[in-house]
Amino acid sequence: MNITVIKIGGNVVDDANARTEFYAQLSAIRSAVILVHGGGKVATELSSKLGIPTTMIDGRRVTDAETLRVVTMVYAGLINKQLVAELQSHGINALGITGADGNILRAHKRTHAQHDYGFVGDIDSVNTELLSQLVQANLLPVIAPLTHDGSGQLLNTNADTIAAQVASALAQTFTVDVIYCFEKRGVLRNVEDESTLIPSLTLTEYSALKANGVVAQGMIPKLDNAFDAIARGVHSVRITKYTHLDGGTLLHKGESA
Amino acid sequence: MNITVIKIGGNVVDDANARTEFYAQLSAIRSAVILVHGGGKVATELSSKLGIPTTMIDGRRVTDAETLRVVTMVYAGLINKQLVAELQSHGINALGITGADGNILRAHKRTHAQHDYGFVGDIDSVNTELLSQLVQANLLPVIAPLTHDGSGQLLNTNADTIAAQVASALAQTFTVDVIYCFEKRGVLRNVEDESTLIPSLTLTEYSALKANGVVAQGMIPKLDNAFDAIARGVHSVRITKYTHLDGGTLLHKGESA
Repeated sequence: MNITVIKIGGNVVDDANARTEFYAQLSAIRSAVILVHGGGKVATELSSKLGIPTTMIDGRRVTDAETLRVVTMVYAGLINKQLVAELQSHGINALGITGADGNILRAHKRTHAQHDYGFVGDIDSVNTELLSQLVQANLLPVIAPLTHDGSGQLLNTNADTIAAQVASALAQTFTVDVIYCFEKRGVLRNVEDESTLIPSLTLTEYSALKANGVVAQGMIPKLDNAFDAIARGVHSVRITKYTHLDGGTLLHKGESA
Repeated sequence: MNITVIKIGGNVVDDANARTEFYAQLSAIRSAVILVHGGGKVATELSSKLGIPTTMIDGRRVTDAETLRVVTMVYAGLINKQLVAELQSHGINALGITGADGNILRAHKRTHAQHDYGFVGDIDSVNTELLSQLVQANLLPVIAPLTHDGSGQLLNTNADTIAAQVASALAQTFTVDVIYCFEKRGVLRNVEDESTLIPSLTLTEYSALKANGVVAQGMIPKLDNAFDAIARGVHSVRITKYTHLDGGTLLHKGESA
């Protein structure tokens, strides 16, 4: 069985037109699909309305108890169920879950020497058996970026990381491709210029671009995650715009190509 | 296969101690279980914090677009995922869903001659095939009180009604019992006096009590739902406190007893 793990970011999640374009693209994919979604602006907006300060460290949200309540409501409730209801209307049998549901993603609370990120989880295990049962039943799992620790605690977990870890775990048994969908065409030589798309990238080429400072700072964690997934058996990773799921930048294991 | 459909109301959902007692009771049930939960006070509190007025008609929440966002966040996000994470910590493999997920509960927006209840759904169909697949995979589905119309619209739907309709639909294939769990011992002759529990009730007996005004006003929709489910093939319905899932008032089809 071939499985495509697709991650959509906040810019797709927040924009009704982008979602509609994305669903049309999704319908064209012939393999089984698992969708992972990010958060978007709604959690920050809701926190602000409720008077809960949003603290970011190095682009990551610090998740205190109140913020965890907000992201649980927004990610697992509002965003996840809106995606599911809309996918259903496009004839796609979506089933929305978090990592707690069916024990799909077990994690532990991150400990960090300098910063306390709060209720943020690093993944320990993926329930690949249940995920494969769901896709074999022709369901499309839609995963919100939350995990749990097995002791009743939900944890906030980065959606890019979830996509990479789910794909790596499933790659032990299935042929797995990953698509990171966002608002740009792919990996660009010049982040200001969409015509500078790099259509294909091996780890060796990426290392050179990174050393030369060509790759934009914000792309580095995404690309590191992606090449890590490839090293762990994922067939390919594509970084592309939500309007072209077969375009963008294709990352692959260069040596055997 | 025997399936028990259990509904817990807001008084259980809102109270950490009540939830813990309930999980202990739940672990003792030998059949497959499907859990349906109500809303509790959190949605009203969140609406109030966000300045969204709560309007009730005959004890039912009027669900405008803003209120639908709030109940989606609270029911499908906060409450559903808290229940799932806690059940997981008790060794119960819970999977939290709404009626949109896996197209479990298809509904239509209610039309009412006098009142506009807003985004409130009346159920048209139950995906019994998927529900039975989930319980056969040893998962415990936890259903939040939301449905969808198949055209991308989520709808707010009463949890008692969901429990009755899910049970009735599954009763075509399986032996199904229902437990309505709340904060009182069961159906009481005198709502102020817990010692006046009615341990067992047939439809004939219920009709007499209703005619005499013995049954409390708030219990009538619940009991009507329950006897309707029994008429449609559900084996029994129990109305009881969350501390005694095998106690309370047992409703059954008197004629064949």
